[in-house]
Amino acid sequence: MKRYAQLAATLGERIEQGLYRPGDRLPSVRALSEEHGVSISTVQQAYRVLEDSGLVEPRPKSGYFVPERRELPPMPAMTRPAQRPVDVSQWDQVLEQVRRAPGGDFVQLGRGTPDIASPSLKPLQRAMVHAARRTDLQSLGYEGIQGSLALREQIARLMLDSGCQVPPSEIVITTGCQEALAITLRAICEPGDIIAIDSPSFHGAMQALKAYGLKALEIPTDPTNGISLEALELAMEQWPVKLILLTPNCNNPLGYIMPDARKRALLTLAARYDVPILEDDVYGELAYAYPRPRSIKSFDTDDRVLLASSFSKTVAPGLRTGWVVPGRYLDRILHFKYIASGTCAPQPQMALAEFVGGGHYEPHIRRMRAQYQRHRDLMTEWVGQSFPSGSLVSRPRGGFMLWVELHPQFDSVRLNQELRRDNVQVAAGNIFSASGKYRNCIRLNYSNRDLPVIEAAVRKVGACAARLTAELHEHAEEPLPA
Amino acid sequence: MKRYAQLAATLGERIEQGLYRPGDRLPSVRALSEEHGVSISTVQQAYRVLEDSGLVEPRPKSGYFVPERRELPPMPAMTRPAQRPVDVSQWDQVLEQVRRAPGGDFVQLGRGTPDIASPSLKPLQRAMVHAARRTDLQSLGYEGIQGSLALREQIARLMLDSGCQVPPSEIVITTGCQEALAITLRAICEPGDIIAIDSPSFHGAMQALKAYGLKALEIPTDPTNGISLEALELAMEQWPVKLILLTPNCNNPLGYIMPDARKRALLTLAARYDVPILEDDVYGELAYAYPRPRSIKSFDTDDRVLLASSFSKTVAPGLRTGWVVPGRYLDRILHFKYIASGTCAPQPQMALAEFVGGGHYEPHIRRMRAQYQRHRDLMTEWVGQSFPSGSLVSRPRGGFMLWVELHPQFDSVRLNQELRRDNVQVAAGNIFSASGKYRNCIRLNYSNRDLPVIEAAVRKVGACAARLTAELHEHAEEPLPA
Repeated sequence: MKRYAQLAATLGERIEQGLYRPGDRLPSVRALSEEHGVSISTVQQAYRVLEDSGLVEPRPKSGYFVPERRELPPMPAMTRPAQRPVDVSQWDQVLEQVRRAPGGDFVQLGRGTPDIASPSLKPLQRAMVHAARRTDLQSLGYEGIQGSLALREQIARLMLDSGCQVPPSEIVITTGCQEALAITLRAICEPGDIIAIDSPSFHGAMQALKAYGLKALEIPTDPTNGISLEALELAMEQWPVKLILLTPNCNNPLGYIMPDARKRALLTLAARYDVPILEDDVYGELAYAYPRPRSIKSFDTDDRVLLASSFSKTVAPGLRTGWVVPGRYLDRILHFKYIASGTCAPQPQMALAEFVGGGHYEPHIRRMRAQYQRHRDLMTEWVGQSFPSGSLVSRPRGGFMLWVELHPQFDSVRLNQELRRDNVQVAAGNIFSASGKYRNCIRLNYSNRDLPVIEAAVRKVGACAARLTAELHEHAEEPLPA
Repeated sequence: MKRYAQLAATLGERIEQGLYRPGDRLPSVRALSEEHGVSISTVQQAYRVLEDSGLVEPRPKSGYFVPERRELPPMPAMTRPAQRPVDVSQWDQVLEQVRRAPGGDFVQLGRGTPDIASPSLKPLQRAMVHAARRTDLQSLGYEGIQGSLALREQIARLMLDSGCQVPPSEIVITTGCQEALAITLRAICEPGDIIAIDSPSFHGAMQALKAYGLKALEIPTDPTNGISLEALELAMEQWPVKLILLTPNCNNPLGYIMPDARKRALLTLAARYDVPILEDDVYGELAYAYPRPRSIKSFDTDDRVLLASSFSKTVAPGLRTGWVVPGRYLDRILHFKYIASGTCAPQPQMALAEFVGGGHYEPHIRRMRAQYQRHRDLMTEWVGQSFPSGSLVSRPRGGFMLWVELHPQFDSVRLNQELRRDNVQVAAGNIFSASGKYRNCIRLNYSNRDLPVIEAAVRKVGACAARLTAELHEHAEEPLPA
């Protein structure tokens, strides 16, 4: 670890342990420089890292302070899905969400689109123009089935940050993370197989289970620590689980980061039952704290973990460029990749290789992390102000999604119907469950850089949710029909 | 039909019926104008169409002539695959073919890449630059799941040429034709199902059967008229066929166009057994004769045909943009499209909508048809000169692939191994059969505009094939081991 990163980690720990408290002034740059025997610029760099993580805030001419802590809404409790394998339902809700092309006045708080309007993506647009203009016309032909080597080299380099040493020859480029998940499921499972998943869980993965005739065994999941290992162990004792599928870092939709100790424990458990793990790391790079969390794959010593990821959340979804690190399943994955869509488009791969290789990825991702963290705090505030009292709100440590749990009888599908006239859409909670649980929850996207737009939209959602909740209370007070 | 097209069809018929013979001078433009009561420019346009189809050749200052016919090598006979459902094999050969990225001195006569260096694609490159530069950043975000409406409108317009009237709302954009085939197979079939296919048949479709646990029932196929309806009927009497999968127009690899009467008869047969048809039309636009052949879908009155196609062969494979017209299966296809790879990349769709909508597609495709037809004649000549005598050669009526059948004991897999030192690759015939038949055949791509390069490569293949065939004859003459 570099000096400034080490210093940032030390200071961050002191703040989190309460050594410096909200509102406290932190030591001056000069004082820290003397205390730690490092240069002024190293301390400044460390403070910038902490600022990006939201742990300190600079005040002009006064130095760095620990930000005042606002009253946060309470978090949801551990989830309690059905503890048996079930067929996945809810396709209609998902279809409604993905059918509409973006644009116009419609605010899609429900989709997983990152901020694609950041000025830090300008070099990407330039790279796309370069790729389109190339006189060797490579962007018009077929690539090799495993994808561009130049891009795989960059991905291998980026993966070092998550603790993974993977050679480019073990990476397969896919059409977004969705194809990585879909071909992995097909390569490993047979119809009827049981897949253990965190719950709530990404609907795209769950719909793939549905399409392939696989059964979802939803495991209770804690909004702070992730999947319950205790519940998972019980489930694995009881059922022949074929694969464990989860998103341990900056989870979608809950936003938690699974602690490293639990990642290791999960591996031990999977080894005991000799079950592979499919790790969805698509949001992992968007953790607010630096350095980014380690992947489960980075602790994997017996090649049990298949890691799926993409540039869709970190850079731009329209590139449709993801990857899978399939370990011992490389040959089968190549076969399924070939039959699923053949080779991937060369042009986005060239553009990404130029963008990442040219050093534009790191500053972009630092900027996005800081922006998303700020937006998380703002949206949490707006939800606290406009949603019915008693709403429970997740506390994401990365990504750009907030999860809100409402009154137990609340109907988020009806909420979405009502919101149509407001030109707003949220993600109804039930699409994140195989059996339609979480219908009283919603997921909100806070990536959009146009804050007044999302503030207005969130307040509309809050007002509508409050109206529907009031109706619930009225009905509860009505005398039962004779 | 327009006047010039009508006139071209009339003249074309007279030539094919032998009314004008090879070497004959055709009537002058003025004479035809008077005979048919049409304008000079209409006759000139008709002659241009016939010239593009290779039916006439202009001689400076002398008028139009019927080209001298060269001695053509004999064509292969009706194929005779195993007449029972089999599991698909041969993945290793396919993998070897698709693993290598293009470039360098290596000549890939084995892959299905069209000519992407044509000047008529310049407007496409410009359109890609426009899409990358768009300030609304649409090319970076998610599209709707069904794909760009602007592009679907253009596809609907193009499909009129094949006799199909399909509204844009019934078209689903896919990641190339391969994804269209893969999701259709998954949407209609269950593991263990039997699929009747023409034989030889495209390896990408066949590998999809393999990956999904489907069985291939290969039907004898005639290199001139396509799949044997008689054999198909017998097969359907005997086996519970779930789907008929075929490429009736400019077939890959045989190059035939199934006559319209047989397309209708196929539909009648499919209706009798109530079986859907998956029609691969990916080469249909590349028929040498004008107008392009009708699709089976265009005769379909009870919504039995799913049509899959793409811009990979007509424009550029690197765009990875195809489509499926799923008829009554629209909802299921959307589900499988969603789980397979989510939405398609917007940028190539925008570029294609601009390219096609801007009127650049038609002149490009006319140019390609003429080029591929010329190349077919040249490659047929080179094969005739350099391949062992007795080789049988297909007579493609569209596309850019030649099929060559060699000595019955010839081993095209070994040929490919030997060709590595020559930096040439062909497609070994056995990958076009579920059971590894056609190992004595090869498929050669003649799209490349750099004629000296492909001529040299074909002559190397011919020399190598001749050497291996001579070895076969030597061994045949050796006394049997005691």
